[in-house]
Amino acid sequence: MSTFKLTLAYDGTGFVGWQRQATGVSIQGLIEDTLCELEGPSVTVIGAGRTDAGVHALGQVASFSLDRVIAPETLVRALNARLPASVRVLAAEEASATFHARFAARMKTYRYRMWHGDVISPFERHYAWHVMGAFNVDQVAACARLIEGTHDFAAFQAAGGATRSTERSVASSRVEVSGGEGAGRLIVYEICGNGFLRHMVRNIVGTLAEIGRGRRSADWMGEVLRSRDRAQAGPTAPPWGLFLVSVAYDAGALAAGP
Amino acid sequence: MSTFKLTLAYDGTGFVGWQRQATGVSIQGLIEDTLCELEGPSVTVIGAGRTDAGVHALGQVASFSLDRVIAPETLVRALNARLPASVRVLAAEEASATFHARFAARMKTYRYRMWHGDVISPFERHYAWHVMGAFNVDQVAACARLIEGTHDFAAFQAAGGATRSTERSVASSRVEVSGGEGAGRLIVYEICGNGFLRHMVRNIVGTLAEIGRGRRSADWMGEVLRSRDRAQAGPTAPPWGLFLVSVAYDAGALAAGP
Repeated sequence: MSTFKLTLAYDGTGFVGWQRQATGVSIQGLIEDTLCELEGPSVTVIGAGRTDAGVHALGQVASFSLDRVIAPETLVRALNARLPASVRVLAAEEASATFHARFAARMKTYRYRMWHGDVISPFERHYAWHVMGAFNVDQVAACARLIEGTHDFAAFQAAGGATRSTERSVASSRVEVSGGEGAGRLIVYEICGNGFLRHMVRNIVGTLAEIGRGRRSADWMGEVLRSRDRAQAGPTAPPWGLFLVSVAYDAGALAAGP
Repeated sequence: MSTFKLTLAYDGTGFVGWQRQATGVSIQGLIEDTLCELEGPSVTVIGAGRTDAGVHALGQVASFSLDRVIAPETLVRALNARLPASVRVLAAEEASATFHARFAARMKTYRYRMWHGDVISPFERHYAWHVMGAFNVDQVAACARLIEGTHDFAAFQAAGGATRSTERSVASSRVEVSGGEGAGRLIVYEICGNGFLRHMVRNIVGTLAEIGRGRRSADWMGEVLRSRDRAQAGPTAPPWGLFLVSVAYDAGALAAGP
């Protein structure tokens, strides 16, 4: 039996998200069905991050085990030949038999893209949240830094989220601005941490956007964080601006071999 | 009566191209139908470049006349409120009564994007041509320069093209490379000229790609150009890598007023 680590990119537009659902097409379902076509017996594929409907990935990581011996390069080619062009396997490698893409993940990086301008580029409509009117990026950038460190992020958890501990460590939380094509600019938020609660990134962005638009003062970010109360935070930013950028593991978790 | 100059961006995926066709959705048809909804009588919209099916625009220019007086900003908002998100009006301005987006165009810039790597990013699948294997970018960049200047471009015209004169002036023809997300790179070709024959950019790119892949030597570019024979050039590169970037006019052609 061989255990594999896959690195995947996908355009989440039109998918129900990573996880298999009763209806609709999921990334997990697509990969599992394609592996089943290749391998015969059904295979369970574990994703490092369970991205929601419409959320994209540049470097999702997935793990699974196969009975048959197969070269990683062959696996990449065989999967890409069968998957739709909206889902691409970027790399495959053999991992230790116990490797679990979600439990072994040490750090994840997410990116959230906002388009600021009167008219959003048609090429950004599925990949950025359109924000209009006055927007104070410097204040948003300063507030983003406030959540760096280890905190109880309960205020930014999806309503109804039932995770045992809501404490997480955020290594970096930064905002950068770049000029886009035409009369608009791209505001890119990037957060790197050891774990994320459901909707945490989108709730942080929704809260930052309230401050950027001047509906709330800069002090509000700290107040929301300290409240540990979901009702205090801003609205959830839409899914299509969010990208799972990468997932990092300890070398030991990956090493294949006896 | 007022004559307007519109600047448009569109994602050409799924459209039959700029021009109205017997079947399928065209950009011209969409704009004309939307103006008709707003204005009542039917309006003819002229596009500076008749982009083919699947070809994109960052700065297409269109002209048309309306009986009614309407502020350009109102026109932008009204059109964008009714058009699909894949087509955006970036700007509108009043122009002289005789302004014609195609006849008055002095310079056009086109960009052609190629993705070079084993696996194409899912985010590039509708916006770049996937080239694999060895690719000599330096040689392609040198060959691209050879077509700068005034030449007879008959060899790069679509088969069956029946333009009276096939002489055109190319002000610049350049290749740049930039690293993309993941294990691939973007090769961007940009050409600026006073006019383009049908399929000219895609035929130039198809020819350059033959040289990049080593199927032809660098000398071949000049041979093809001098041959004036379409049968000599490389295959037509696919439409989805092509973008109409911008169209330039003389100030005089635009000036509204008596």
